[in-house]
Amino acid sequence: MPVISHRGAQMPPSPIRKLVPFAEAAKKRGTKVYHLNIGQPDIETPKAIMDAVRNVKMKVLEYSHSAGMESYRKKLVEYYKRNNIDINHNQIIVTTGGSEAILFAIMSCMDPGDEIIIPEPFYANYNGFGTSAGVKVVPIPSSIETGFALPPIEAFEKAVTTRTKAIMICNPNNPTGYLYSKEELEVLKEICLKHDLFLFSDEAYREFCYDGRKHISALSLEGLEEHAILMDTISKRYSACGGRIGAFVTKNQQVLDAAMKFAQARLSPPSFAQILGEAAVDLPLNYFDEVHAEYNARRDLLVKRLQAMPGVTCPLPGGAFYAMAKLPVDDSERFCQWLLEEFSYNGATVMMAPAAGFYATPGKGRNEVRLAYVLNTEDINAAMDCLEQALKEYK
Amino acid sequence: MPVISHRGAQMPPSPIRKLVPFAEAAKKRGTKVYHLNIGQPDIETPKAIMDAVRNVKMKVLEYSHSAGMESYRKKLVEYYKRNNIDINHNQIIVTTGGSEAILFAIMSCMDPGDEIIIPEPFYANYNGFGTSAGVKVVPIPSSIETGFALPPIEAFEKAVTTRTKAIMICNPNNPTGYLYSKEELEVLKEICLKHDLFLFSDEAYREFCYDGRKHISALSLEGLEEHAILMDTISKRYSACGGRIGAFVTKNQQVLDAAMKFAQARLSPPSFAQILGEAAVDLPLNYFDEVHAEYNARRDLLVKRLQAMPGVTCPLPGGAFYAMAKLPVDDSERFCQWLLEEFSYNGATVMMAPAAGFYATPGKGRNEVRLAYVLNTEDINAAMDCLEQALKEYK
Repeated sequence: MPVISHRGAQMPPSPIRKLVPFAEAAKKRGTKVYHLNIGQPDIETPKAIMDAVRNVKMKVLEYSHSAGMESYRKKLVEYYKRNNIDINHNQIIVTTGGSEAILFAIMSCMDPGDEIIIPEPFYANYNGFGTSAGVKVVPIPSSIETGFALPPIEAFEKAVTTRTKAIMICNPNNPTGYLYSKEELEVLKEICLKHDLFLFSDEAYREFCYDGRKHISALSLEGLEEHAILMDTISKRYSACGGRIGAFVTKNQQVLDAAMKFAQARLSPPSFAQILGEAAVDLPLNYFDEVHAEYNARRDLLVKRLQAMPGVTCPLPGGAFYAMAKLPVDDSERFCQWLLEEFSYNGATVMMAPAAGFYATPGKGRNEVRLAYVLNTEDINAAMDCLEQALKEYK
Repeated sequence: MPVISHRGAQMPPSPIRKLVPFAEAAKKRGTKVYHLNIGQPDIETPKAIMDAVRNVKMKVLEYSHSAGMESYRKKLVEYYKRNNIDINHNQIIVTTGGSEAILFAIMSCMDPGDEIIIPEPFYANYNGFGTSAGVKVVPIPSSIETGFALPPIEAFEKAVTTRTKAIMICNPNNPTGYLYSKEELEVLKEICLKHDLFLFSDEAYREFCYDGRKHISALSLEGLEEHAILMDTISKRYSACGGRIGAFVTKNQQVLDAAMKFAQARLSPPSFAQILGEAAVDLPLNYFDEVHAEYNARRDLLVKRLQAMPGVTCPLPGGAFYAMAKLPVDDSERFCQWLLEEFSYNGATVMMAPAAGFYATPGKGRNEVRLAYVLNTEDINAAMDCLEQALKEYK
């Protein structure tokens, strides 16, 4: 029998999915499971953009341009301009989800054995893309004690080697919800310029910033034009995860040229969801107000409930729709499994993502969990009732 | 300024796209261009399957299962059964186009430095996926003189090294149109079993077989269950290239497990086109009859016209919708460019794909072109009038 590849063997399994069989078993037993474990928003996809697809006129579902439909890219220029990102449509490659934008960035800029510095905890699939591309992920610690602020510049300096090619951030952050400040972005700029590193900036949650704070894009940092690569997606912005439409954006022409060759090899991004994405740019500008208010209320409630539980630490996240919490347990994976396997309260339980899967350093985050506030406030309250009771019962 | 990766620099540009600027310039001058250069069918996407998307009911465009919607995978089992491929829905991973199925096969089975044997000429993007994965493509020659039949077993034996992990075929073949016989597939089976190699079988054109011949899938070869990986797509079958839906199918559980981890890292395939694909399995079984008759007529006309031109060789292709022709010219790339830059006949010219881009061996195929018969017979006739006249004028 022929054997699989080493990279196939080494690919990390998704940390979120390990618990899925236990959740399914709980549901079979009749227990309601509140899903705070994944970033699948419950918000309805705006009807106007779904209708754009429902009204599609084309007779032949053709390949689009490998960089995406020109009309969509031109529309995106408007969107980015509104967000203080000044680019033209030839600096955008429409990708199959944010995932493909991450892949294009790594493949275009890094070779096997090269190193990428990422503040941990980080989005677990960065590990997968790193493994598949043969690049080494070098984590530097951010901590729940400082609310997951950017690690100090000394931590970056210590991590840089001759093989370092890039720093990757997610801003606002998944899984921590941390929103980087202008000052923190300036630190990143300084270190990228000093060591000539790319800055890969995952801005999937750009619209999800709270407390009146504004998002600052890596692409808007003056002087970093040749270093910054924006990895974007419409998944969270418009509750359109299944569309699989993202964007790879940079002003670096060499990087664009390289990424275009990867884009051409896979022919084109999906057509239907490009139509949806194009319509989305024309949504009324107040569309986000309601979405924003809803997530804001959910965040406030979730964090208030968590902070009221004895032994629980939960910094207030400034963006995205995730919160990290430290729980008074030894091993959050075991606790999360116990919640699904053995616990219920009022016929329900709660599913959370054990945080260890978001850390590259073994042993870190073992008493932390990530909670995605993608449920309405009533359900969040009920889920928090479960968690509160569970922490009392759990030994 | 930070530098791009070696793999980014080494990625081959698409051989078909080199001529695009010349075609655009020709159109600007008012010259009509008959596009026989790319495999974008002109056949309408069946209205019934477009309507399935137009009638979509979902309110939240959610991620689907990373392996694709279960309902779609179960439907696909029916489709494959009709095609003599006996698998279950857990042996299918729905991919983002056939492209991603190729990528999953290479990534799951091969490591950097491993070798894959491919009869040349072959689909040019295999080179791109090979480069991006760091694997070495080892071409073995098939020739226009034998109509691009499978190279003899000795050619495979000579090419096998300790790093060989797989053989890749495209059946029916792009770019040659060659349809492999049962005997040829048995040769491939023998060599795969003897050297414990994977057989990657790209069957994008399964339905496009002529002269009453039946397609035989690598997955239906008895004894090859652990070695065969099917890479499939709905793009050509239903004229649905822009949907970006394909499939990775194998009975090898280890390979499936590895591929699933790559699938999970990119979250899910596009939702809309999965709905389209699911509806497609329920198209009336005679749907292909009309499509088939149309392509058959196009093939017969194209080949008859080519064979009637002095100095032109064109074997009759048994499948797909491509023909390879040897022209009485030194350098088909220069000739194709000349056709677009300097030639017109009745206000029109023809665009073809120079064949050198489909060969990995430098210098090969330089007097050959690939023609995709994706235009109606009237246009094919007009395009052949152009080519006939051009060959008379060209020095």
